[in-house]
Amino acid sequence: MNLLKNDTFLKALMRQPTDYTPVWMMRQAGRYLPEYRQSRKNAGSFLQLCKNSDFATEVTMQPLDRYPLLDASILFSDILTVPDAMGLGLYFEEGEGPKFERTLQLEADIKKLVVPDMAKLQYVFDAVSQIRKTLNGRLPLIGFTGSPWTLATYMVEGRGKTDFLTIKKMAYARPDLLHHILDTTAQTVIQYLNAQIASGAQAVMIFDSWGGALSHDAYIEFSLNYMQKIVSALTKTNDGRIVPSVVFTKGGGLWLEAQAEIGADALGLDWTVDIGSARKRVGKQVALQGNLDPAILLSTPEAIEKEVVKVLESFGHGQGHVFNLGHGITQLTPTENVATMLKAVRAHSQKYHL
Amino acid sequence: MNLLKNDTFLKALMRQPTDYTPVWMMRQAGRYLPEYRQSRKNAGSFLQLCKNSDFATEVTMQPLDRYPLLDASILFSDILTVPDAMGLGLYFEEGEGPKFERTLQLEADIKKLVVPDMAKLQYVFDAVSQIRKTLNGRLPLIGFTGSPWTLATYMVEGRGKTDFLTIKKMAYARPDLLHHILDTTAQTVIQYLNAQIASGAQAVMIFDSWGGALSHDAYIEFSLNYMQKIVSALTKTNDGRIVPSVVFTKGGGLWLEAQAEIGADALGLDWTVDIGSARKRVGKQVALQGNLDPAILLSTPEAIEKEVVKVLESFGHGQGHVFNLGHGITQLTPTENVATMLKAVRAHSQKYHL
Repeated sequence: MNLLKNDTFLKALMRQPTDYTPVWMMRQAGRYLPEYRQSRKNAGSFLQLCKNSDFATEVTMQPLDRYPLLDASILFSDILTVPDAMGLGLYFEEGEGPKFERTLQLEADIKKLVVPDMAKLQYVFDAVSQIRKTLNGRLPLIGFTGSPWTLATYMVEGRGKTDFLTIKKMAYARPDLLHHILDTTAQTVIQYLNAQIASGAQAVMIFDSWGGALSHDAYIEFSLNYMQKIVSALTKTNDGRIVPSVVFTKGGGLWLEAQAEIGADALGLDWTVDIGSARKRVGKQVALQGNLDPAILLSTPEAIEKEVVKVLESFGHGQGHVFNLGHGITQLTPTENVATMLKAVRAHSQKYHL
Repeated sequence: MNLLKNDTFLKALMRQPTDYTPVWMMRQAGRYLPEYRQSRKNAGSFLQLCKNSDFATEVTMQPLDRYPLLDASILFSDILTVPDAMGLGLYFEEGEGPKFERTLQLEADIKKLVVPDMAKLQYVFDAVSQIRKTLNGRLPLIGFTGSPWTLATYMVEGRGKTDFLTIKKMAYARPDLLHHILDTTAQTVIQYLNAQIASGAQAVMIFDSWGGALSHDAYIEFSLNYMQKIVSALTKTNDGRIVPSVVFTKGGGLWLEAQAEIGADALGLDWTVDIGSARKRVGKQVALQGNLDPAILLSTPEAIEKEVVKVLESFGHGQGHVFNLGHGITQLTPTENVATMLKAVRAHSQKYHL
């Protein structure tokens, strides 16, 4: 950390004083960038971008080169590398979301599920090492994973963004089977994140994209409990530093109090939560990351600045805010609107840190 | 109301004492019922079921005949009758959601939008009258509408379940245009609900299916404010009785305090909210309707009973609970599981009303 030229992001996650509110964007290396679209064309497919560490490094660096006001970099990868390594056969069809060749629905298939050899994910750890080398201390690097619940939804349903009826039926009719999937996935994720840390990740984030589909009790039982296991098993960096963790349940704004108890350093917030109210609810236990609606980046410079100011004002004075979008940036975003947002965050946040 | 053989539902909405917790299900007349599927086949299409009052009455009555433990009936119709009457051209494609021939995106088109002649919706009012006649006091009849925000999402985007980027871009870049759409739609909905009341609706519900896609501030400005206008403009029945209103924002559990202030008699809750916590947050201002996850009805009788008991226990003793699902019943639901749920509600709720 002492070699980092900009550690504002890591300090904010640890609720330490900073000169301004650091900012990064979920999916900041993505399709809204023409240089990303070119790299993807060169790579041939999205999966090739993830699996080749030269490409993964190239696209990770693109937003940093375009936007000097970014305060963190994030590994270019996908949450579905894990179920792929667990043998489910990830593939993408043009114009559609990710799918799996196999699903976990039959008891016999579920009982065969085991923690895979981490060698199958070596390409991710190679990307982390190469990105760290390329960053050369410029910014901290975030590693990440999907939450066990979120990964399980893909493994059981075979795809994302469903009504989750198959996995919920399992949750209520055969919770023992679902817990076997979740436990095996959590053990896998622990090894996966710790290998990312050993390769150079300086912070980690757990994306619980579909936790918000659950009831309160089911969320605790099937999602939050497994994220807690992961957070409590995270190792330190090779040189003994703490690796701050961020837990983000999209649509989970009702359950922030429970989330704040699991030992993570920060909570991600989607845009439906007022960040000031969230701060009152969780107190000083955790930092908060978020939470501008990414749709705002499609509007005007005036509206973007106004909404950035509202988020900063709502959080208010003091430590523990990482500015971000409430969800991944949309591919329709004009690149100049990102610059407008970043400038507004830097300009308007300093007074909250005096 | 004195002619009603069962007014438990209306009493619960008004926070008056009842002997047990009344229950009905969103989309209770629907595809999970074989008799509904037969009627739809006979009618030729979903829209014909809505537009022909004989068919609308037939399918409205089906769940009541099958399940004597239901405590309310709801008009069979669709929230999109309103934008259809406003000139947008509703149609359904097999296997896909509803779509519109025209969308409201250009300023010139938006400025031409006016409150339509209610004669275009006479088929809905005819259905209400005929259902009331057929019910003959057996159960109260609920009329309904979509919220202006939810209807506007269809009018601007041309379909539902989107990322709402077009309408959100309008909300932030040209709020004046969106407010014109919302205001015109709210005026239309007021006339629409009051005509349903004049035709015999004894309670009304506003479905805000997509309000949960907004940020807190945007929800107040673009959705809740317009629902408040509607609620405050509702008339009484022809014989001078109050018509209780239910407001339901799916995904709106973070904003219950604000919802409780708009003058509605009850709030609908989806399953992500713990109903006991919701009750603590809103106090005695409103009744609460909900909120079993409809996915639970795909599981086992034991799990269904257990989860019904959890909802009843969470709400606890006293007035103001209408049991319902947290969203429409899914078409995959086994019909016998509905009976299990209804029996469990009746059996386990009586002790909370002693």
